[in-house]
Amino acid sequence: RKKIELPLQTGIMGIKDVITEYFLEFWDYETPKVIVVKSRTLGITYRIVQLLIIVYFLWYYVFLTQKAYQDRETGPESSVITKVKGLAKSDPSIHRQKIWDVAEYVKPPEGVGVFSIIVRTVSSPLQSLKTCPEAITVSNSQCSTDANCLEGEMDHFGNGQKTGKCVRYNDNIYTCEIFAWCPAENDEAPSESITEFAPNLTIFIKNNIYFPKLKFSRGNILEDSDSSYLKNCTYDKIASPYCPIFKLGYIVKEAGETFENLTKEGGVIAVIINWNCNLDLAATNCIPRYTFRRLDSKKSAASKGYNFRFAKYYLLNGTEFRILVKAFGIRIDVIVHGQAGKFSLVPTIINIATALTSIGIGSFLCDWILLTFMNKNEVYSGRKFDEV
Amino acid sequence: RKKIELPLQTGIMGIKDVITEYFLEFWDYETPKVIVVKSRTLGITYRIVQLLIIVYFLWYYVFLTQKAYQDRETGPESSVITKVKGLAKSDPSIHRQKIWDVAEYVKPPEGVGVFSIIVRTVSSPLQSLKTCPEAITVSNSQCSTDANCLEGEMDHFGNGQKTGKCVRYNDNIYTCEIFAWCPAENDEAPSESITEFAPNLTIFIKNNIYFPKLKFSRGNILEDSDSSYLKNCTYDKIASPYCPIFKLGYIVKEAGETFENLTKEGGVIAVIINWNCNLDLAATNCIPRYTFRRLDSKKSAASKGYNFRFAKYYLLNGTEFRILVKAFGIRIDVIVHGQAGKFSLVPTIINIATALTSIGIGSFLCDWILLTFMNKNEVYSGRKFDEV
Amino acid sequence: RKKIELPLQTGIMGIKDVITEYFLEFWDYETPKVIVVKSRTLGITYRIVQLLIIVYFLWYYVFLTQKAYQDRETGPESSVITKVKGLAKSDPSIHRQKIWDVAEYVKPPEGVGVFSIIVRTVSSPLQSLKTCPEAITVSNSQCSTDANCLEGEMDHFGNGQKTGKCVRYNDNIYTCEIFAWCPAENDEAPSESITEFAPNLTIFIKNNIYFPKLKFSRGNILEDSDSSYLKNCTYDKIASPYCPIFKLGYIVKEAGETFENLTKEGGVIAVIINWNCNLDLAATNCIPRYTFRRLDSKKSAASKGYNFRFAKYYLLNGTEFRILVKAFGIRIDVIVHGQAGKFSLVPTIINIATALTSIGIGSFLCDWILLTFMNKNEVYSGRKFDEV
Repeated sequence: RKKIELPLQTGIMGIKDVITEYFLEFWDYETPKVIVVKSRTLGITYRIVQLLIIVYFLWYYVFLTQKAYQDRETGPESSVITKVKGLAKSDPSIHRQKIWDVAEYVKPPEGVGVFSIIVRTVSSPLQSLKTCPEAITVSNSQCSTDANCLEGEMDHFGNGQKTGKCVRYNDNIYTCEIFAWCPAENDEAPSESITEFAPNLTIFIKNNIYFPKLKFSRGNILEDSDSSYLKNCTYDKIASPYCPIFKLGYIVKEAGETFENLTKEGGVIAVIINWNCNLDLAATNCIPRYTFRRLDSKKSAASKGYNFRFAKYYLLNGTEFRILVKAFGIRIDVIVHGQAGKFSLVPTIINIATALTSIGIGSFLCDWILLTFMNKNEVYSGRKFDEV
Repeated sequence: RKKIELPLQTGIMGIKDVITEYFLEFWDYETPKVIVVKSRTLGITYRIVQLLIIVYFLWYYVFLTQKAYQDRETGPESSVITKVKGLAKSDPSIHRQKIWDVAEYVKPPEGVGVFSIIVRTVSSPLQSLKTCPEAITVSNSQCSTDANCLEGEMDHFGNGQKTGKCVRYNDNIYTCEIFAWCPAENDEAPSESITEFAPNLTIFIKNNIYFPKLKFSRGNILEDSDSSYLKNCTYDKIASPYCPIFKLGYIVKEAGETFENLTKEGGVIAVIINWNCNLDLAATNCIPRYTFRRLDSKKSAASKGYNFRFAKYYLLNGTEFRILVKAFGIRIDVIVHGQAGKFSLVPTIINIATALTSIGIGSFLCDWILLTFMNKNEVYSGRKFDEV
Repeated sequence: RKKIELPLQTGIMGIKDVITEYFLEFWDYETPKVIVVKSRTLGITYRIVQLLIIVYFLWYYVFLTQKAYQDRETGPESSVITKVKGLAKSDPSIHRQKIWDVAEYVKPPEGVGVFSIIVRTVSSPLQSLKTCPEAITVSNSQCSTDANCLEGEMDHFGNGQKTGKCVRYNDNIYTCEIFAWCPAENDEAPSESITEFAPNLTIFIKNNIYFPKLKFSRGNILEDSDSSYLKNCTYDKIASPYCPIFKLGYIVKEAGETFENLTKEGGVIAVIINWNCNLDLAATNCIPRYTFRRLDSKKSAASKGYNFRFAKYYLLNGTEFRILVKAFGIRIDVIVHGQAGKFSLVPTIINIATALTSIGIGSFLCDWILLTFMNKNEVYSGRKFDEV
């Protein structure tokens, strides 16, 4: 065995000989010398340690938990189409009776994955651009003299630009006059709400996913469902877990909320669709799992509930008017996530090889026992180690 | 070699000596004893097995397929801006002639990544809140006496609340009277459509991605494109694969659909932008690839096509009126996904080391051949194994 | 050691004996023979190489950079709720004075993660479906005789369908007559803008994330913030990095833009919320980091800025009219990404074992030194290698 040292030591052999020798040695097979210790105790210990490592690491963790024998893919392409159905009527109270259909309570109407169902509205009177007293719901809007109202000032939370005058709001109260969409909105005015009917509204969710690497697509409307079933079913965790039609009341209940709270201030609820597909099994085993969770925190006083404002515009005698609507709603965020895996040979081998390196821990442990605690450890260490 | 056993066996050496000895031994170098088998057969077998493993695992799988020498990142930050252009005219038929521009057929108008192009509409007459007969398209709406109409009932799929009367719908048919937005919508009424013109509408898609870990950003509008090219090109897989303007007709065709089907019931089509960037090459090699796929299943009878309803509001003599529009459209979902990778030394070394552990399989195989099939295997095994 | 060769060589021993022998050998413990080289130089070299590998690979890269001792999860479920507040007034100029509140400048109003703040509008006159001269801003719209205007033609970038007549646009110019929403939009008409006030608009962003695998949720409104703080704070990178209220002017400045540029042509700005949570620490250490980036490229002449068109509809004497609004705005895309990790025993062990395989590089190096450069390398190689 005089491989590479030759040119450095002697220098007599030509470079050709070195290469020849090196080439010949390339075809030798080297295998480590091994000491066989015929000790039952040590052997059993070693095998048990090996077994534990194999069972726990390789079987339980790498294979069962991590599914490392599969090519895995997360974050599928996903598309969500939603459609809300149902009718509601707002309480007559001081307002007109009003029938609410889809066009009234779903915003935006296009059936995307994030949408709001309006359950309560506060509508302003018909507004146009002119001057009027600021609403008393705006902090610091009250005044006693014109001097309290700085002309040209625009309050960040107000409704318009101060004209500099202090005018009568009602019998007792004076507020600064503003140039704004007048009369100014009073967002504590009586509201119209559909609390009673909203729980019965139904949301149809159509979700298609596609894993581009694994070339696998799947939808939440199972192919074996017939159309009459789909028209009349409603989702229930236990009774009909594959029905893609969800009652709003059910969603709210599953998210751990009561409808009364949500109707008052609004809220945001996630409908989470979770796909966990093992493509080594039949495609029919790849089934969506639905969960529901409230997304806006109830506690935080600074940001409770969910509402938004929009306007409807009218033209009357050449002047533009609008009605400003403050809408309290339940926003539904359909969130899709998923993962899929399929057996693949190479990751299997690499992962097994990797996990088996952990078995070295077993050898390390047993060597230590051998050289330390065994009766004849002097003998063993003499045989194992060859000092130079 | 009496390392750790000393304190346990003799106990005479002080702890200091043990530490000294241990410290000295720490600087020894240990290397395994090796048997060199000068067998051409075995050597060649071993080298071939090694070669196969290296070529297939390391080269093909780890390097070419998995690009394991790179720091990889998936799921870039992405933003999509869309702009639809083009004009269309709906057939006069019983309706007025109508010119459709962007404001008429794109919903929502803001140019986000998910939007609908309305290709057919069914408009209700001018509606207000009053009483009228229920539409006959609603199932179970027909009646013969008032007793068939339960006062106060609201049908989930109906248009309003029953007043309890049975009234004449037309010459032959009676339906329950309802309080609703009246006259009730008949969604099988004649429609306006732009089938003929819609395929020529163009969609401009601006997509920017950013990989935060690799700090790399890129857009689908290639920097070398001049503005006159971008104003007039249209995407074609072969002729102009980098033009970001897509004809609606081309998208539909590539998704495997015919325009006639889509116009009738509507549908959802994904424009998938796939980025696969190797940052070891020049940035100009990082180029988007577009694919098109229909997302709603055509088969499912329960959920065919894509449509949504919205209303336009008018104020006439102090009363609110609306026109309810049922819009059938082609929804475009722009879906972006991508991955990027850049050479990094440490994952390269770790992955090589990991893959090389698989080479142990070669040693295992050759040891087995050596000890089982070789002529002189007794000799070999005598040299390899040293029993204690 | 005559394990498997027996049946093949002699054939005399029964299969039972072979199994028995094999079973007995299964409980033997094998450990490699090792040569101990008592060379300080080599030992130190070996330990230094080992140390470097351990420090750099294991400690720096695997543990600090990759946090490989953790179960890691990226791509949390995320929901974003936004709310814009503030008032603005457009310059009187030739237009009426107009107060802009949320309902006027935020589109869509529902408070989703992608929305536009309109900062400049060009409004068409009141339009209805009739005939009028094409706008001169449309290229090739000018004509001198009827022959220039092909009857029935619809220009892709035009406003309507040509009637075939050439009519007077103004004193000097003739354009083709079109059937369209008339009078045709002139998008270079005077505009209303709120440049002066827009920087003071505030955007409240509520973001909740949830890591489903690690079962960890968190919001960007820190629980210890009191509600009066949240009502009045504005985000500042240094002074108040946890305030979820952002001034539009601040966002624009941080994105490296000036407000004047953005107001003129519009633009798209990303507010990126980055969560990087180490769940081995207290939850209060899991804090969002905000960055801002302009998403549409300023350079590209073909696609500068951001604008969209929408219409408001009116009914006057039974005829539908509309006002077409071309809105230039600042679109805000709230982009959330994050990752979280938590200590987990098995990945720790597997990653250590994997990284340690790289230490083999150290042995390889030292073996080479030993057999090549050491004084007594003939001795060493004689002891290490045992030729057969």
